Amino acid sequence: MFRPEIKVLDCTVRDGGLINDHRFNDNFVREVYRAVSAAGVDYMEIGYRCSKSIISPDKFGKWKFCEEDEIRRAIDGIDSHTKLSVMVDVGRVEKADILPKKDSVLDMIRVATYVKDIDKAIDLVNEAVDKGYEGTVNIMAISRALDNELDEALAQLEEESKASVVYIVDSFGALYSENVQHLVGKYKKFLKNKEVGMHGHNNQQLAYANTIQAIIEGANYVDGTIYGIGRAAGNCPLELLLGFLKNPKFDVRPIFDVITNEFLPLREKIEWGYIIPYAITAMFNEHPRPAMAIRKTEDKDSYLAFYESLLPDDME
Amino acid sequence: MFRPEIKVLDCTVRDGGLINDHRFNDNFVREVYRAVSAAGVDYMEIGYRCSKSIISPDKFGKWKFCEEDEIRRAIDGIDSHTKLSVMVDVGRVEKADILPKKDSVLDMIRVATYVKDIDKAIDLVNEAVDKGYEGTVNIMAISRALDNELDEALAQLEEESKASVVYIVDSFGALYSENVQHLVGKYKKFLKNKEVGMHGHNNQQLAYANTIQAIIEGANYVDGTIYGIGRAAGNCPLELLLGFLKNPKFDVRPIFDVITNEFLPLREKIEWGYIIPYAITAMFNEHPRPAMAIRKTEDKDSYLAFYESLLPDDME
Repeated sequence: MFRPEIKVLDCTVRDGGLINDHRFNDNFVREVYRAVSAAGVDYMEIGYRCSKSIISPDKFGKWKFCEEDEIRRAIDGIDSHTKLSVMVDVGRVEKADILPKKDSVLDMIRVATYVKDIDKAIDLVNEAVDKGYEGTVNIMAISRALDNELDEALAQLEEESKASVVYIVDSFGALYSENVQHLVGKYKKFLKNKEVGMHGHNNQQLAYANTIQAIIEGANYVDGTIYGIGRAAGNCPLELLLGFLKNPKFDVRPIFDVITNEFLPLREKIEWGYIIPYAITAMFNEHPRPAMAIRKTEDKDSYLAFYESLLPDDME
Repeated sequence: MFRPEIKVLDCTVRDGGLINDHRFNDNFVREVYRAVSAAGVDYMEIGYRCSKSIISPDKFGKWKFCEEDEIRRAIDGIDSHTKLSVMVDVGRVEKADILPKKDSVLDMIRVATYVKDIDKAIDLVNEAVDKGYEGTVNIMAISRALDNELDEALAQLEEESKASVVYIVDSFGALYSENVQHLVGKYKKFLKNKEVGMHGHNNQQLAYANTIQAIIEGANYVDGTIYGIGRAAGNCPLELLLGFLKNPKFDVRPIFDVITNEFLPLREKIEWGYIIPYAITAMFNEHPRPAMAIRKTEDKDSYLAFYESLLPDDME
């Protein structure tokens, strides 16, 4: 697939940070930046920007906050055309922590939100765009969104927001290709002046396939992570995505190299990938939280018992 | 997806045998049979039937030959409605080794072939059907088949063969959903009186997604293996497939249990799954053979060098 409009965003450090409390060392972040820059990836999301007045810095590593001087240190001296982004969560950032663009190395701010918080997300993304950044809104837990509420949110985003991209975020890894087809179609119906983005999770080994499906349906902004690192089962593997896209600006080779040098050792220390409890939460269209919890216990591989623990009670 | 015509075939022992020279012990095969039977899986393929006059029994375990008394011992006493199949390779079996159905516990014979050997495959599958079995033809390496040759093979299969199912076999794990859509459409155009089957390989994490795509396009016979075991990256994980299919005859729970008890220990001894060299051979639409070879060397994780070793020479 070659469509010049397609933009790839690497969120290795940002989504990967969800499994190690954002405690990547500087060298790792540098090597990721070096690799994605050499690979011609359009954007790299280097972490979250949370406000230390809201989230305690005692509990998280520095990539939860992405202070400007930390970012500058990590990327210093590396030749790159890759733009930088951070993610901000509705309710976890003060507007004052979004600096004017001229004081920042960042190019893009991505606002993560649930449908119910869409008004707050619009307020936040407009703040970012007004300060000079590209802005996106990423609608999480999309597989649980009620149809009429999602319609309303998309109509609002089109009318009221200055975001240039609105993402489908399959937080639970629960979407099948038919759902992706339906959702991209819906997004495109409402968003006449914005691009559609796709962020998959790999609980059912569908993150890459769903990303291809989204591209086929017309999504032009797609997320990947190196070796698929990310919360729970992880994300769409960037190396597969670059193998699929035929745009000559991409070169997958630096990604293979950094997997060998940085990701194989890391995978020995923290886990992600095809792990049955995450597949099970996705089958139930549930947040991976209970699976993340059981993976920290002695029952981490008691799959049948875990499955049965999620069977619905009589809810009538 | 619920379509009563859909039949699921578990080929755990058959395709998994390709990574351990078919040396599963009896208890493992029994537990697989017990699990797929309890799960309501329609067919279980228990191995290959090769002739000992052609393939030396010194080099392979018993599931390369699947003698009747060995199968009977493995399944003895287990309550089951799951039908049994073996795969036969063109050129590796004598017709005399296909017993009359009344002397066999098998229900189905699946003939694996390349397009070029289609005449031999038709001869073999007709022999099996004449002896009382259900018969299928599985066209391997489909991502390398020349379009006109495949058309001719499918036309012949429709006219001359007694097979009830013809499979798409993505031996290299190289197909994308658009290719699956194209191929199922082509198969259905030629095969008016036969069912279409799908056997995926997971080199690019697309085996499950491609199987869903094949179902959407009208394929009614689909293969899976428990925990995705199989040559190289493995196959479509049966547990995901059963999670997708809504047919009430299926129960995924016994599969989760056997993964915990049998497959996690096995995975410590032999490897399959998302392993970068297999993704790379798939990107080049190559047989996984060079990746299988490098995985046995000290360079098994030198991904960039492996990628570059596959770059084409000047072939003009």
